[in-house]
This record gives sequence, structure tokens and C-alpha cells, in this order.
Amino acid sequence: ESVRVAVIGGDGIGPEVVTEARRVLEAALAQEPVEIEYVEFSLGAEHWLGTGETLSEETLEQLRGVDAILFGAVGAHPQDEKAPSGLLEREVLLRLRFSLDHSVNLRPARTYPGTATPLAGAPEIDFVVVREGTEGPYVGNGGAIRRGTAHEIATETSLNTAHGVRRVVEDAFTRAESRRGHVTLVHKHNVLTHAGDLWRRTTETVAAEHPGVEWDYMHVDAATIHMVNDPGRFDVIVTDNLFGDILTDLAAAVTGGIGLAASASINTEGSAPSMFEPVHGSAPDIAGQQIADPTAAVLSAALMLDHLGLSQAAHRVEQAVHAQLEAWAQAPDSARGLSTSERGKAFAARLRP
Amino acid sequence: ESVRVAVIGGDGIGPEVVTEARRVLEAALAQEPVEIEYVEFSLGAEHWLGTGETLSEETLEQLRGVDAILFGAVGAHPQDEKAPSGLLEREVLLRLRFSLDHSVNLRPARTYPGTATPLAGAPEIDFVVVREGTEGPYVGNGGAIRRGTAHEIATETSLNTAHGVRRVVEDAFTRAESRRGHVTLVHKHNVLTHAGDLWRRTTETVAAEHPGVEWDYMHVDAATIHMVNDPGRFDVIVTDNLFGDILTDLAAAVTGGIGLAASASINTEGSAPSMFEPVHGSAPDIAGQQIADPTAAVLSAALMLDHLGLSQAAHRVEQAVHAQLEAWAQAPDSARGLSTSERGKAFAARLRP
Ligand SMILES: CC(C)[C@H](C(=O)O)[C@@H](O)C(=O)O
Ligand SMILES: CC(C)[C@H](C(=O)O)[C@@H](O)C(=O)O
Repeated sequence: ESVRVAVIGGDGIGPEVVTEARRVLEAALAQEPVEIEYVEFSLGAEHWLGTGETLSEETLEQLRGVDAILFGAVGAHPQDEKAPSGLLEREVLLRLRFSLDHSVNLRPARTYPGTATPLAGAPEIDFVVVREGTEGPYVGNGGAIRRGTAHEIATETSLNTAHGVRRVVEDAFTRAESRRGHVTLVHKHNVLTHAGDLWRRTTETVAAEHPGVEWDYMHVDAATIHMVNDPGRFDVIVTDNLFGDILTDLAAAVTGGIGLAASASINTEGSAPSMFEPVHGSAPDIAGQQIADPTAAVLSAALMLDHLGLSQAAHRVEQAVHAQLEAWAQAPDSARGLSTSERGKAFAARLRP
Repeated sequence: ESVRVAVIGGDGIGPEVVTEARRVLEAALAQEPVEIEYVEFSLGAEHWLGTGETLSEETLEQLRGVDAILFGAVGAHPQDEKAPSGLLEREVLLRLRFSLDHSVNLRPARTYPGTATPLAGAPEIDFVVVREGTEGPYVGNGGAIRRGTAHEIATETSLNTAHGVRRVVEDAFTRAESRRGHVTLVHKHNVLTHAGDLWRRTTETVAAEHPGVEWDYMHVDAATIHMVNDPGRFDVIVTDNLFGDILTDLAAAVTGGIGLAASASINTEGSAPSMFEPVHGSAPDIAGQQIADPTAAVLSAALMLDHLGLSQAAHRVEQAVHAQLEAWAQAPDSARGLSTSERGKAFAARLRP
């Protein structure tokens, strides 16, 4: 059996960490009757500088044909005036999420051995955020009049649909069933009454269809407090696109770093390929030096295996990462100064029989 | 000289903590040629249950006539179905902010002696968040069609004006001049391009008028990471209404608790009274038991003194709170089990000559 995976290394440290993800995938599948055929795509700031293209219709069409997408990072250096980084994030990253209908943006948050959580008492954390990925304030529905004058008015409209909210909430409740059985809906319904109301009613309906799952509601501001004071309480968080963006960065911080945070942008309907990417950005300041941490990319590859139905292999990658981080935590000297690929190789070595 | 202050105790622990704020104000002004004349207003869930009124035009008219408003908290118990708490928050709290043109929502975040910060290493924190208070996603500009069906669409529109943004950014830069001279603009301009662009251009313009102040920009998601990993780096944060709501709760959490977080809703034009309130809510579960911490209300009263031009008295209140918290930190046994009013009295005692 063969699966086709598009690889988009992108900018900065993207290509470096994706190389390690591929190394680990290869090791994980060595004993399996599955082969991955990789198709490389050049996208990002470099590509844009060279071609003037962000993401062409043609490329998008080709991407639609693969089974999954492994993504590094895009974005030029903020100081680089030639390649406005907001443009690439919107025209590549967000365009992919919207065009491929990535309704669920899945972001696990957990503590690993040896990671330095900034929280006193180093609490154990293990939750997932199911972030909506195709609507909310991310739809680009804004405008401005009298721009640049003292009378300027700028708007941004958040769009929320029953269709979009329901599939995400369903995903969250289904995930909770195979976890600790608890969902927390995060919104701000006391202020964003119409959107909040849709999210609440939808959650009530879906909850009734999942009697084994408990749920509660939390305002987004209060959620940040609990995430710092008692992150262990969360199991599955379901929330809108913007709140999810904010909470998952906070979650990465409290678990001990963005270098470990993996994510999956999932097309829940199966109408287009899903995409797997580390939460971190392109970090152009440390690019090309082989000092980036590939762990988030490797864990994103594990999410991809799981999505492709290779859940045993996915599990083995997670175990390997866990065991290797544990080993490094036990003998910190052995981890000091390791390059990006030395780290990747160490994970891969644990997967060989 | 006499100033008129409206007092709105509100619901839950609101009246208890406001009583202590008044006690401390009285002690602070004992030696000053200023007297405060208090005018009490009954607002909140209790008032709504009794009268069916949230905030009448008449009350609003009377409030317009005072020099400042000291506010406790409003909101019924979430389980109380008779008084929907979102309604009161909107119809009292937000209505006051909008009607009285409270453009700047000021929220200092600092560590105090003896407070248990959840961060390892207990970093020192001392920054203020200048949150916009009258526009953004808080304007109530939303709607829904086909409500309750599978085709429902709900929208929320964020409104941002040059006028509204400029006065807040100006306030932030002016504050930075008498602090450590640094402003951080927090937004999400890579996604909310029109609103973000207005905030960025406005900040560039205002920054040029304040050459002594440095500034940088941070996406809201990244800001949550820095707030957990290196909160000491912030001096003045300026941001929109919703991001400010989220970041100030997070700030309260990392500094060691919402029981200490004070806030001021300031009418920067002087066209209506400003309002001073603890960030915490009405906490109905612990109401009436004299166990609420009055510190946030007392520190809010200090912000009020400062706003009324009584900056020496304001400073003395802050010093008194600081010294008393220090004393309790040194001798934790002496603080254990103290009631709300015993705490208020201890702060007040330090202000007597
Ligand atoms: C780069 C940016 C557009 C993106 C987002 O806001 O979703 C990023 O922050 C993320 O979380 O994947
Ligand atoms: C109660 C609520 C409407 C309010 C807000 O969102 O502004 C509160 O969270 C605050 O921060 O003062």
C-alpha cells in the first residue's frame, strides 16, 4: 500500500524540522506494509520572492490530490521588508486551511519528561484543544473607510455557521469519549451574544447525543486563569478560531514550550487532505543552523500517521519521543548541544527493531 | 473641597469589598483638605429582581453628575436562572462603560509581597494594560439568521475608529513616559488586517510624537507566551477591548491572583465620571461570609484618588497595602483567617498618622 504525502518545508527552520519528521516516519514504517510517496512543494517567502506567487490554483489542485500534507512553517523574517510575513501566513497557511476545508484544528497540549514548564509545582498536563479552523474572525470579512484620516472606521466580522460549529463540537465530544470524557466549551457569550449563543446551543444538542461525556462552559478570559492555575483540569477544549489561536499558544507555553506543540488541520468530511504542522513558526533568526528542535514536527507526523489509519505506528512514534525525552531528562549532558538532525536520528533509532 | 463619589456595591461580595475601600479612603483623606460625599446606588441582580430594571436612564443621568464611581461587582450566581448574569454584565457594566465613554480601561498588573504566583522562580512583574473600552468586538454589533436551524449564521462585528484607537494609544504612550518608557502594542494584524492596520498606523503616528518612548508589536497569541515565560519584560501594553479582556485576566493570574487586580474605566476627555472597580466578579458562592479579599477594591480606590488629582493620597494607600501585605507575608499566621473587614481595617490603620 502506498500513500501520497505532500511535503511543504517552507521557510526558516521549516525544511530542517520536516526533514527530521520524514526520517522518523521512515523508521516508523520500516516494518509496515505501507510506503509513503513524498511530493515536494516549494511554498513560502523564498518561493514568493522568486516567483511572485503565494499559492497558485495549480498547486492547490495538485495538493487536493494527495492523502495528507506535512507542513513546516512559512514566514519571512519580520525585518524583511521584501516579504511581508502577514501576507504569506494568510495566502499560504490560512488559504490552505480554508480551501481544503480544515474544519478542525487539533492541538494537543501535554507535558513531556524534561521539559521545563514555567509553572511552579510542574503540574501534569494532558488536554487537546479542538479549535475551529474555517470561520469565526478568520474569514477576512473586514474593511475600512476614510483610511488614514481622523474619521477612519475599520471593521472585522466574525462569521459563525451551524454547519461549521456543529462538526467541530461533534469532533470534540467524540474525542472526549476515547479520553477522560470531559469537554470544556470556551467562548465569550456574555459579550459576543449571537456567536456565543450558537456555540452554546450547538454544544447542548451535541452533548445530548453523547451522554457519556460531561461538559462545562468557560469564558475565554477565565480560561486563561485556569490554564495557568490548574491546567490539569482540562481534557478536551472546544472553541472558536481566534480563541483557539490564543489558548493554544498559552497551552504550549504552560506545557513547557512551543518546540513541542504539534497540530493537525483536519478535513473532517474527507473531501480534501488534512495537514500536519508544528505550531511554531519559521523562526528565521535560528534557521539553517541545525539548532531548531524537531520534536513538534515529529509529533505532528505522528498525528498524520494516526489520521491515515496507521494508529499503531503513530503510537510507536509518540512512545519513542517520550522515551527519548525521558532519556535526555535523565542525562541532560547527553542532550546538550545536539543538532536538529541528531535529535531526529535519536527518535528514529528508537523505532528500529 | 468636596468630591462626589457614586458607590455601586452591586451583588455578591461587591458590597463587602466596597465597604473596605471606603474605610481605607476615609483613613487616607483624614489629614487632607478634601471630603468625599458618597451617593449610593443600588444596581445589579438583586436590584433587577426587585425592580425589573437593569440601569435606568434616570440613574444614568444621576451618575453623570458625580466626580467618580466606585464599583463593586454585578452578576448573579451562574446557577440562578432568575437573573441571567450575561444580561447584567451587559446592561449594567458594559452600558456604563459605553454610556460614560470609558475609552481607557486601565489594569495594572504587579506582584505584591506574599502573593503566590503560579510561575516558577516567582518573577517580579510590574506592567499596566491600557485596554480600549468603548469599541472593538464589544459594540454588540451582531446578529443571526435562521436561528435554531441547520442553516443558522451568526455574526459579530468589531468596530474600530481612528478616534477611539488614538486616544487609547496616546494614553499608553503618556503613561509609559512616567514609567519605564516602553509600549507593547498587542493585536493580531496578520489575520484582522483592517483593524490591525488601524492600530498599527495609529501607534506609529503617536510614537513619533513621543520620541522618548520605545515600542514594539506582538501578536496576541505570542503575547500569552511571553506573559507566562517572561512577564517582567512588559511595561505598558496597549490593546483592543477583547484582547485586553483576555490578557488582563491572564496577567492577574500570573501575578498571583484576581483578588489583587484593580481597574479603572477612564473617560479620558473628562466628559463624564470615570469608574473604579476590582477586576474580580461578584463571587456569589462566597458572598456575605466576610471571607472575600478586599485588596483589589482598595487598590481600585487608590486609582480613583489618583484620577481625582489626589496622587499623594493614592500613593499612600498603595504604600499601606504594600507594607501590610509584606507584614502578612513575614508572619503568615497573623494573616490566617482574617475577615474581609479585618483586612480593610489593617490597611486603614497604616494610614493613620
Ligand atoms: C500564522 C497565523 C495566521 C496562525 C493563526 O493565527 O492561526 C498561527 O498563529 C497559528 O496558530 O497557526
Ligand atoms: C463581565 C464582562 C462583560 C467583563 C468584560 O468582558 O469586559 C469582565 O470580564 C471584565 O474584564 O471587566
